[in-house]
Amino acid sequence: MSSQQKGDYFQLDTLKVRHYCEALFETYGFTPDESRIITEVLIRADLYGIESHGVQRLVRYHEEIISGQVDPKAKTEIVHETGISAVMEANKAMGQLVSVMAMKIAIQKAHSNGCGMVTVRNSNHYGIAGFYADMAANEDLIGICMTNTEAICVPTYGRQPMTGTNPIALAMPADPFAFSFDASTTVVPRGKLEVYRKNSQPLPEQWAVDSAGNPTVDAALVIDNIISKTNGGIAPLGGLGVLHGGHKGYGLGVIVDLFSAVISGGFTSNHVNVSPGHTGICHYFMAIDYGIFGSKDAIKAGMSKFLREIRESSKAEGQQRIYTHGEIKTQLMAQRLNGKIPVNEKTLAEIRNIANKQGLKLTEDWF
Amino acid sequence: MSSQQKGDYFQLDTLKVRHYCEALFETYGFTPDESRIITEVLIRADLYGIESHGVQRLVRYHEEIISGQVDPKAKTEIVHETGISAVMEANKAMGQLVSVMAMKIAIQKAHSNGCGMVTVRNSNHYGIAGFYADMAANEDLIGICMTNTEAICVPTYGRQPMTGTNPIALAMPADPFAFSFDASTTVVPRGKLEVYRKNSQPLPEQWAVDSAGNPTVDAALVIDNIISKTNGGIAPLGGLGVLHGGHKGYGLGVIVDLFSAVISGGFTSNHVNVSPGHTGICHYFMAIDYGIFGSKDAIKAGMSKFLREIRESSKAEGQQRIYTHGEIKTQLMAQRLNGKIPVNEKTLAEIRNIANKQGLKLTEDWF
Repeated sequence: MSSQQKGDYFQLDTLKVRHYCEALFETYGFTPDESRIITEVLIRADLYGIESHGVQRLVRYHEEIISGQVDPKAKTEIVHETGISAVMEANKAMGQLVSVMAMKIAIQKAHSNGCGMVTVRNSNHYGIAGFYADMAANEDLIGICMTNTEAICVPTYGRQPMTGTNPIALAMPADPFAFSFDASTTVVPRGKLEVYRKNSQPLPEQWAVDSAGNPTVDAALVIDNIISKTNGGIAPLGGLGVLHGGHKGYGLGVIVDLFSAVISGGFTSNHVNVSPGHTGICHYFMAIDYGIFGSKDAIKAGMSKFLREIRESSKAEGQQRIYTHGEIKTQLMAQRLNGKIPVNEKTLAEIRNIANKQGLKLTEDWF
Repeated sequence: MSSQQKGDYFQLDTLKVRHYCEALFETYGFTPDESRIITEVLIRADLYGIESHGVQRLVRYHEEIISGQVDPKAKTEIVHETGISAVMEANKAMGQLVSVMAMKIAIQKAHSNGCGMVTVRNSNHYGIAGFYADMAANEDLIGICMTNTEAICVPTYGRQPMTGTNPIALAMPADPFAFSFDASTTVVPRGKLEVYRKNSQPLPEQWAVDSAGNPTVDAALVIDNIISKTNGGIAPLGGLGVLHGGHKGYGLGVIVDLFSAVISGGFTSNHVNVSPGHTGICHYFMAIDYGIFGSKDAIKAGMSKFLREIRESSKAEGQQRIYTHGEIKTQLMAQRLNGKIPVNEKTLAEIRNIANKQGLKLTEDWF
């Protein structure tokens, strides 16, 4: 083992992890190009510091591919198209593959016609929403991306999950780094509850309800209820009830389902992962050439100025720094891209286990 | 006094209030058509049950017009335009007038080219964001509207307000009533703090910070600090810090400033209401013909089904009903449109006072 261990984490060479993932995805029947694209999205999460969506997800992807939820040979089709829009049928494709394709179409339409909106049905988990918004920002466009997920969020006054984590991502070029927002419309994503369960800690108030719809601080109970599709779930952003604005997070979650599932004719969150062997997850991708509003240089400079003013504004007592969205992940990625990424020892064991199952030899040279 | 009084509220004939407002706005030099439009937006807030943005605001509009912040003779101009976009210079126009014009342009572009995005700079307070989103939904389009405001919201870890209430509204046709979302990206709007101050109640935790950036439950202090532009302000949706997702609300507020102020070349929230006699508020209007994604009937039916499933989903213990966004205001408007609207006795006194100042005779026949 050439990698360094710190606590529960191994520091693995980013390049080696990348090569491993590419080789692994080829074992499922993805082409080398496809394997490279999936890996790119997956590794980006680790580079950005979003561990929950990085190589930690390999075990879940493995299960989804083996069980047939994901079809490595799926042919995606454009089923409806205009100069500024497209609807894609993913046919159970790997989420990352149809999503990179969809955002590329949105980007091309934005370059040609000012904006592009592409909605995708019958897909699968696609990694981090921010990856696709950032694709557009890297092309000097505004990028927007949303996805629905399995229902985990109860509407205000409800006890039955009807919307998913339903993240919204938006990226806009700026100097010295882009604004890049990527947030679930729930008070927290499911992964955060899993951390509380692992540490046997009670959840903060207002995060979740039990199967009767009453507030609960029992993380294990909430997760079990979500998995078994018993009632109970996570609160929308803003919490339970309306006092702190929970109805706002609930509405934002519905908006994500509108753009991803309703206009694509796919499954809304409450129908995702209900049929065996079929998740039915839906996504939305949008790119806007902000030059349709005037000088791109002036607009980008305006955004840079606003973000700088926020970062330089007065800090609360005891705080040293105000971040703008995208700052932390940009800094982490600069360190990690040609360096190392931290991988939990349990994740590394899972990776080795998957490699064995897939007949992939892990040599000393890799990790 | 022919109107009925219930508690502190008078029930006034909607039609009479409308006629009064139209006559009042003409006294400032607005044409009859312009006065009708401003009144339409203003009254709609009372019809929807959003008292803070209804005739209660007349006193503020009066002051803004008299002080020259609003120019009744302003000529608005389109300064940049493409088939799907426009940038408008409001030249200090009454917010409602340039906004109705801007959303009409967005709607026309959506009908012709699939979508329309119109951004407006140097405007003024425009009433409820939902009015303009609903304009598009009434034309069988998806409508989106945002506006910045005077800065009242502190970024995560900050103590200086950098973004405004910055609401996001989105409306989508559905049966038996449209989905119509309209929410500030702050934990609460300023009006809610004013209610706590009036009732001498402590604010809930996590709603606001004092001038040092420490949490406070003193509503009067927070409002005074906002008005005097001392540091301190309201928390973003999700609260202070990051535990409950305050960084998400903060980011949504920045996004509203991006679309309203940055791409229009106007003032971001932190520069609004800073120069004497000039608010500089900016707005964003978008309409999407959802027929660019396929059969409008099928898509609208899909939205109606999803909203119905949410309303019919299991209620939390002790709850009778789950609402979808737009439900309550649709019901209230049906009652009030040809009926009566409740007007607070203090508001009625202010209205009479303004009428006196403007030389408008209020006869028994009116209220």
